[in-house]
Amino acid sequence: MKKITAAVTMGDPAGIGPEIICKMYAKGKAGSRADSFVIGDMGPMLCAAGKIPKKPVIHPMKTAADIKKGKNIINLYDMEIIKEKDYKKGISCARAGMASFMYIKAAIDMALKKEIDAVVTAPINKHSLHLAGLKFPGHTEILAEFTGTKKFAMMLAGEGLRVVLVTIHNSLKKAAALINVSSVYETIEIAHNALVKDFGIKKPKIAVLGLNPHAGEQGAFGDEEKKYIIPAMKKALKKGIKVFGPYPADTLFHYVVKKGSHDAVVCMYHDQGLIPLKLLYFDSGVNITLGLPIIRTSPDHGTAYDIAGKGRASAGSIIAAFKTAVEIAENRKKQV
Amino acid sequence: MKKITAAVTMGDPAGIGPEIICKMYAKGKAGSRADSFVIGDMGPMLCAAGKIPKKPVIHPMKTAADIKKGKNIINLYDMEIIKEKDYKKGISCARAGMASFMYIKAAIDMALKKEIDAVVTAPINKHSLHLAGLKFPGHTEILAEFTGTKKFAMMLAGEGLRVVLVTIHNSLKKAAALINVSSVYETIEIAHNALVKDFGIKKPKIAVLGLNPHAGEQGAFGDEEKKYIIPAMKKALKKGIKVFGPYPADTLFHYVVKKGSHDAVVCMYHDQGLIPLKLLYFDSGVNITLGLPIIRTSPDHGTAYDIAGKGRASAGSIIAAFKTAVEIAENRKKQV
Repeated sequence: MKKITAAVTMGDPAGIGPEIICKMYAKGKAGSRADSFVIGDMGPMLCAAGKIPKKPVIHPMKTAADIKKGKNIINLYDMEIIKEKDYKKGISCARAGMASFMYIKAAIDMALKKEIDAVVTAPINKHSLHLAGLKFPGHTEILAEFTGTKKFAMMLAGEGLRVVLVTIHNSLKKAAALINVSSVYETIEIAHNALVKDFGIKKPKIAVLGLNPHAGEQGAFGDEEKKYIIPAMKKALKKGIKVFGPYPADTLFHYVVKKGSHDAVVCMYHDQGLIPLKLLYFDSGVNITLGLPIIRTSPDHGTAYDIAGKGRASAGSIIAAFKTAVEIAENRKKQV
Repeated sequence: MKKITAAVTMGDPAGIGPEIICKMYAKGKAGSRADSFVIGDMGPMLCAAGKIPKKPVIHPMKTAADIKKGKNIINLYDMEIIKEKDYKKGISCARAGMASFMYIKAAIDMALKKEIDAVVTAPINKHSLHLAGLKFPGHTEILAEFTGTKKFAMMLAGEGLRVVLVTIHNSLKKAAALINVSSVYETIEIAHNALVKDFGIKKPKIAVLGLNPHAGEQGAFGDEEKKYIIPAMKKALKKGIKVFGPYPADTLFHYVVKKGSHDAVVCMYHDQGLIPLKLLYFDSGVNITLGLPIIRTSPDHGTAYDIAGKGRASAGSIIAAFKTAVEIAENRKKQV
């Protein structure tokens, strides 16, 4: 099997992206199983590299063929968009927002042209994006837009738990209103396909949560289970997808994490899935966008402006994201 | 300080109540720091006792003065309501529902008359209650009704986490609609008073969660934080209560559990608090009703009809509930 090539986008220059990327390479955690390079800018990368003990060497390159191999070398596809003087660590600005967007756009283009096998994205800042006039709530929507994807879902994964969200960045009231047979069914289907194709699980077992406490307690605490979730599950069962539930959200995670009862959990809203995920895998959670034609993972944290440039950011999550991206790319290649 | 006297209600005879109570006494876990007795029926207790290796002796008694001390003795205040032939393990029925209600009612009366210091309740079955014509959703509402309590809150506690709920058994939509300045403020106040009085923490630090993902992200994902939660917190701060937040629910629990950042977390809805609690403390979580004139704790699980009578139920949670009830009673006595 041909070695995987992955690109890592630098994220918002004013955030912790450059630092966690340099730490990942300095620790040798993006090494043997894949060739990789960073899509970003020289100034912020040099600045971040200069602040860590084993200072990595930044090697500028233009195509995957130019990738220089060796310990502690970071290959950089230098976009030449932003310089150190153009932004301040920890402060949103239009230039940082535009730069972070351009890195992602470049990565998407390379992935669609199959020049690379996977994209790992360092965090971007929504406020900076907005200052740059870009009205995207986050990475997922940018990726969907520029790959022409209509049906997608966010998975967050830790060592022993994968959650897939039916609704993401909505108020709780709006999230409840967005639960219907097709939103639940589509998420189940996307999750199933990803577990088979990306994670190499032949017959995945998927747990589906209720929206309401006690999964509605037979209608006493809400009827979305009866009206939407159960019919969506029946539709999935007819298609041969192994779904179980709907389970009460407060008891299920114990069985998944402690006993490995299911391969993934379909959650109705953001915090239903992210509370257990971040509680158990605060420094190692991976965000995976399912349903895209390209492979994309990211750390499950933000730009952390409060600690940007201070050398305190953990590279745990981006290291896990890189590893996951490579594993997915390998699984997909095996099946071709 | 006079020794604490606690009563343990037997719960629904068809559930796991009798079994976990017998296991607790057989393990010697309701021993030295308190005198205690069970409020229940002889038939179900004898049946449960007969099924565990170190069969406890059931000693019938009528007042606290009759409590017989010694290893593996269970003192039983025999209500003589139900016999073994009147119900089947794992099946709801009116007789079991009425019996479980009568045990609680007797315990409340004893506690209000100060014959006992604390009540520990084994699980009841809502469906059995309803079959008996009793329209209570659960213990908490029975306790509130018969102690004349208007403002109360449910706390769930594990070793390193205490959550207090603003809304409990409502659909998610209804829970969101019930969030307002007074519901949030009252819960904060009840939590604060309990931490001081019941848990002996002089200046408790209380974390308050947002309702929406990212605590509303400055209004982008909902405005309940700005409209209700922050004003309620300001009111609490004016009264000298140390509140912090509103925090995003997905990141806060890590800091509370791993770093002990706060003494309790005020949660807006059932699963927001119960997901992390049950994930970490599945077999040792304790339910504490705050705001009552009497002390009441319970295990944080239900009647578990699916395993009732099979000898597989864990006594971990009721043992923790008993211990917590005794600690609260001791803390209250210290302050008199």
